Amino acid sequence: MKSYLILVILLIIKASTIFAADYSYSGSTGPAFWGNINETCIKGENQSPIDIPYDEFIKFNKPDNVEFYNVNNVEIENKGHSIQISKNLNAKLKIGDNEYNLLQFHFHTPSEHRINGNYHDVEAHFVFVDKEGKLSVIGVFYDVSDQQSKFFDPIVSNIPNKNEKKSIEFIELSSVLEDINLMNTTYNYFGSLTTPPCTEGVIWWVAHPVQPIGKDQYLKLRDTMGFNSRYVQVRKGFVNNNL
Amino acid sequence: MKSYLILVILLIIKASTIFAADYSYSGSTGPAFWGNINETCIKGENQSPIDIPYDEFIKFNKPDNVEFYNVNNVEIENKGHSIQISKNLNAKLKIGDNEYNLLQFHFHTPSEHRINGNYHDVEAHFVFVDKEGKLSVIGVFYDVSDQQSKFFDPIVSNIPNKNEKKSIEFIELSSVLEDINLMNTTYNYFGSLTTPPCTEGVIWWVAHPVQPIGKDQYLKLRDTMGFNSRYVQVRKGFVNNNL
Repeated sequence: MKSYLILVILLIIKASTIFAADYSYSGSTGPAFWGNINETCIKGENQSPIDIPYDEFIKFNKPDNVEFYNVNNVEIENKGHSIQISKNLNAKLKIGDNEYNLLQFHFHTPSEHRINGNYHDVEAHFVFVDKEGKLSVIGVFYDVSDQQSKFFDPIVSNIPNKNEKKSIEFIELSSVLEDINLMNTTYNYFGSLTTPPCTEGVIWWVAHPVQPIGKDQYLKLRDTMGFNSRYVQVRKGFVNNNL
Repeated sequence: MKSYLILVILLIIKASTIFAADYSYSGSTGPAFWGNINETCIKGENQSPIDIPYDEFIKFNKPDNVEFYNVNNVEIENKGHSIQISKNLNAKLKIGDNEYNLLQFHFHTPSEHRINGNYHDVEAHFVFVDKEGKLSVIGVFYDVSDQQSKFFDPIVSNIPNKNEKKSIEFIELSSVLEDINLMNTTYNYFGSLTTPPCTEGVIWWVAHPVQPIGKDQYLKLRDTMGFNSRYVQVRKGFVNNNL
């Protein structure tokens, strides 16, 4: 009985450790301390996001194939730090012989990547995975505009309460690919997840043409998520050594 | 002659060291490395900005007296990282027996302070100094809006080229004080400068009512300065231990 009690106490301590390890964007669980959650966040050498020097940004690259289809009955989740859409998605990337399927997409305010020190109001991350679990992410920038976004409309109209989920009937996902010029102008680099566990080996595609988002759409998204942008990481091998 | 040459070489090395010590918002001179420029930035225990827990934010405080007057023929400087207005300013704070005069004001995009994890599009810093060189700063938040800002109008219309200055005929500075409810609702704390040398002992007043800035005014300011927001600092003594 005594050993059973000790086991229960140990489990409670373990559970509280896991709970404490939840990450945030300020204070003692903020980005500067993510190394306490996963070492890769502090020791990794190819961490994301980055400040992309313009000279590098204009050297475009693209996947071997990319397809985005409109989707029905997807799930939207308010994860506190982020708004994430998943399930019933239909988009794919081909990089060499590997096919990657769209697992989920979510948003960051302000943008995580910067271009020559400049940022944008929102960055969408479309997270793809292949059969072996390798990841590839397309980043798309949005700036506040007089023009409403058809893509964001069903998303900001259906934001659930914190830690809750909802269903969205229809998202015009195909428009995203058209908007970013069919990925003819994306900056391609090897990086990481921008949140713990900060896993490396992620093939990044940061799309160049910045898209419009309506003022009220932007403010609703921003004020739901708050500041959820990791600061840019120091990288080796860039032409501009200051970045 | 030889010793003269050595002196010249040493001076060049010294000059390049000073140049290298210039701070930025990404890479090896970014906020994580400001401790290399001034130890206070990394070792200080009362660093700014902070993420203010809402519970703390609602405990308002105000200076003993505060006056803002409209100003003529002020100087605007594009410092690269920031747009700064100085000279011929006319505003004062009284804290106890000490009178502080407005030295300069400048802007950050996105906001440096956060309230319960939420940020705003722009934060203006009105930097006051007393006779002994002690500093007090009023922070004012701005959010993108359909409404243009009369205060920002002459500023965004007169942004000089990088590292250049211009004169601005008139700024409606008195409106700022009215907009922020005569400082009846500001969060008061002891912090630091948010840029190197990160000097502590700064009396902060973060104003509560968020002000409007026009979309185009905001985008012009943001894209001129780029991302110039230090990440929030870990502070002791807050009710919310996660902040």
